[in-house]
Amino acid sequence: MVKKQSNKTALQEKEGVSNPEATSERAISILQKKRQKQPSAAALLEEILKGNTTALSRSITLIESHNVAHKTKANTLIESCLAHQKPSVRIGITGVPGVGKSTFIETLGTYLTTLGKKVAVLAVDPSSSLSKGSILGDKTRMDGLVKNPNAFIRPSAAGDSLGGVSRHTREAITLCETAGYDVILIETVGVGQSETAVHGMVDFFLLLKIAGAGDELQGIKRGIIEMADAIIINKADGSNLTAAKLAKEEFKRALHYYPAKASGWTPKVALCSAIENSGIDAAWDLINDCIAHTKQTGFFTKKRQEQNTFWLLQSIENQLKDQFFEDEKIAKELKTQLELISKNKRSPFAAAEYLLNLRKTRL
Amino acid sequence: MVKKQSNKTALQEKEGVSNPEATSERAISILQKKRQKQPSAAALLEEILKGNTTALSRSITLIESHNVAHKTKANTLIESCLAHQKPSVRIGITGVPGVGKSTFIETLGTYLTTLGKKVAVLAVDPSSSLSKGSILGDKTRMDGLVKNPNAFIRPSAAGDSLGGVSRHTREAITLCETAGYDVILIETVGVGQSETAVHGMVDFFLLLKIAGAGDELQGIKRGIIEMADAIIINKADGSNLTAAKLAKEEFKRALHYYPAKASGWTPKVALCSAIENSGIDAAWDLINDCIAHTKQTGFFTKKRQEQNTFWLLQSIENQLKDQFFEDEKIAKELKTQLELISKNKRSPFAAAEYLLNLRKTRL
Repeated sequence: MVKKQSNKTALQEKEGVSNPEATSERAISILQKKRQKQPSAAALLEEILKGNTTALSRSITLIESHNVAHKTKANTLIESCLAHQKPSVRIGITGVPGVGKSTFIETLGTYLTTLGKKVAVLAVDPSSSLSKGSILGDKTRMDGLVKNPNAFIRPSAAGDSLGGVSRHTREAITLCETAGYDVILIETVGVGQSETAVHGMVDFFLLLKIAGAGDELQGIKRGIIEMADAIIINKADGSNLTAAKLAKEEFKRALHYYPAKASGWTPKVALCSAIENSGIDAAWDLINDCIAHTKQTGFFTKKRQEQNTFWLLQSIENQLKDQFFEDEKIAKELKTQLELISKNKRSPFAAAEYLLNLRKTRL
Repeated sequence: MVKKQSNKTALQEKEGVSNPEATSERAISILQKKRQKQPSAAALLEEILKGNTTALSRSITLIESHNVAHKTKANTLIESCLAHQKPSVRIGITGVPGVGKSTFIETLGTYLTTLGKKVAVLAVDPSSSLSKGSILGDKTRMDGLVKNPNAFIRPSAAGDSLGGVSRHTREAITLCETAGYDVILIETVGVGQSETAVHGMVDFFLLLKIAGAGDELQGIKRGIIEMADAIIINKADGSNLTAAKLAKEEFKRALHYYPAKASGWTPKVALCSAIENSGIDAAWDLINDCIAHTKQTGFFTKKRQEQNTFWLLQSIENQLKDQFFEDEKIAKELKTQLELISKNKRSPFAAAEYLLNLRKTRL
């Protein structure tokens, strides 16, 4: 008891307070403020359903938090949102830096709001979490959309791994759909593994290109063209127009050499100039055609179900792997085993068994 | 003690023997026969190094065995082989049924033996393990190679899963290289996931095609063309020749639209007629060019190292997943969770966490 008392005093000293009554009053006031700052999951849901974008932003911050208590609350929030999710179209947009993704999203997003739609813009960019930057950080390129009451822009999801970033983005989609956004645009840079992740969470995947010097496929990661439901060549304006038209023909030929898509949809190639606002309506018509096609065949729903199953299994796999390789002893022994393998002194399978057994004896 | 005695008698009765002395003699004889039938790992290695193909065959059967004692012995054997592996070229050959893979392998294999090379033919075909058939079962199509003393043909690896089949094939490669085979041909059918597995264990990946009616890409799985180091159009003979030449041009154009390979090698398209034995030497020259190129750049060794690392990680992942999903309780709950997800009552991530926690409480 004495010790406990002494601890309390130490805490009071630390807080710089000597009067116990004052401490208690202050604690209540802090708690009240905290409660105001951190509303419950139910309160957040209520506000999201009302269209409160501050609550929506705060909820996305919550799901990105590393704090354990926040995670529990975030899970409760996401689960409570599921019953309120509204129909939407999820569109993935990729392209290497310089193709004008931000301007394209600004123009397309603004156009969609003129059609009476509510538009949410999210981004997946695991690399930005390293530099603490964001591909949507430069909001000046979306200055119209930022101020648009029917648009919601959220800079790229933070996370330590692509798995983490993907999860946060998937959950942000759920939040935005709960808030009633009709079109969810998910931006990603055309490098790394993030396209596969984004492709796995959208209904339509768009590759943005510009006409280059000759080899139009330069710099595109393998497989991205296969994932694309459409290739849209941006900056098809002024002196660029002829080159853009040539690029369009080349991509059309290229797509002919790719196998048919499981959806039965034939990928399209189109031109646009986001900065001159030309071809944006056609791009939207094209997206709508594809969505109508896949809804008619039942592929739309089937794909969303498959995506859900994929994320369930993927999430389990990632966590099983993380738990395994985060074990310090395993991490150390993995290096040793890789060395033995490179010297042809151990087969990869024997090394795998050795590591799995090592783990077993440690559980 | 009485019970034990009674048990012994029961066993003797079961074996149909009443005289204990006779039992013991019989047991020794069985053991001796067994020892003859199942040589030690060291004895197998010794025979393999001598070029004994029966020992090689038996060793492959050993690595495919599900018996736990066999697995331990198989691991010992493979580990002891590593120091004796000789340099080789590993070639993956894929193509849909009907393109003439067996005839191609028969002709190429025979040609290689005339160049003084020892050739091993393996196959990856997980589907055959279901039907208990084998894509190399019809050895009559390889009747020359079967009788050739410098060739070794092993029908497709058995296994319950692609992971199992892949592992067996990888280990069979080690055994064949220990036996001194210079060229390892690994056949797979052009469907399913097996190409990716084979691509991950070879130095050169060959797609075999025939000229079709118009769309040459029909029936090819997505990504296979991207994996190919060469596309060879077989049956380029007689009235087929013109169509084959056209197909060659079409594939050349198609390849132009695929991104460059990490190896720096530009995939080639060539014609051959395995049945008329034309273009086979050119096919081999082409393979040699690629191997020489990748050896010169260091990519050959780098790729083999990467493949080893891949198989180590893949093997761990597969086993972690198997251990998880083989748990009966998990398997049952997975179904329930998937149902909740499909009804939009649970998010994939919450379901994953639920299952992972379930597992934790059971460990």
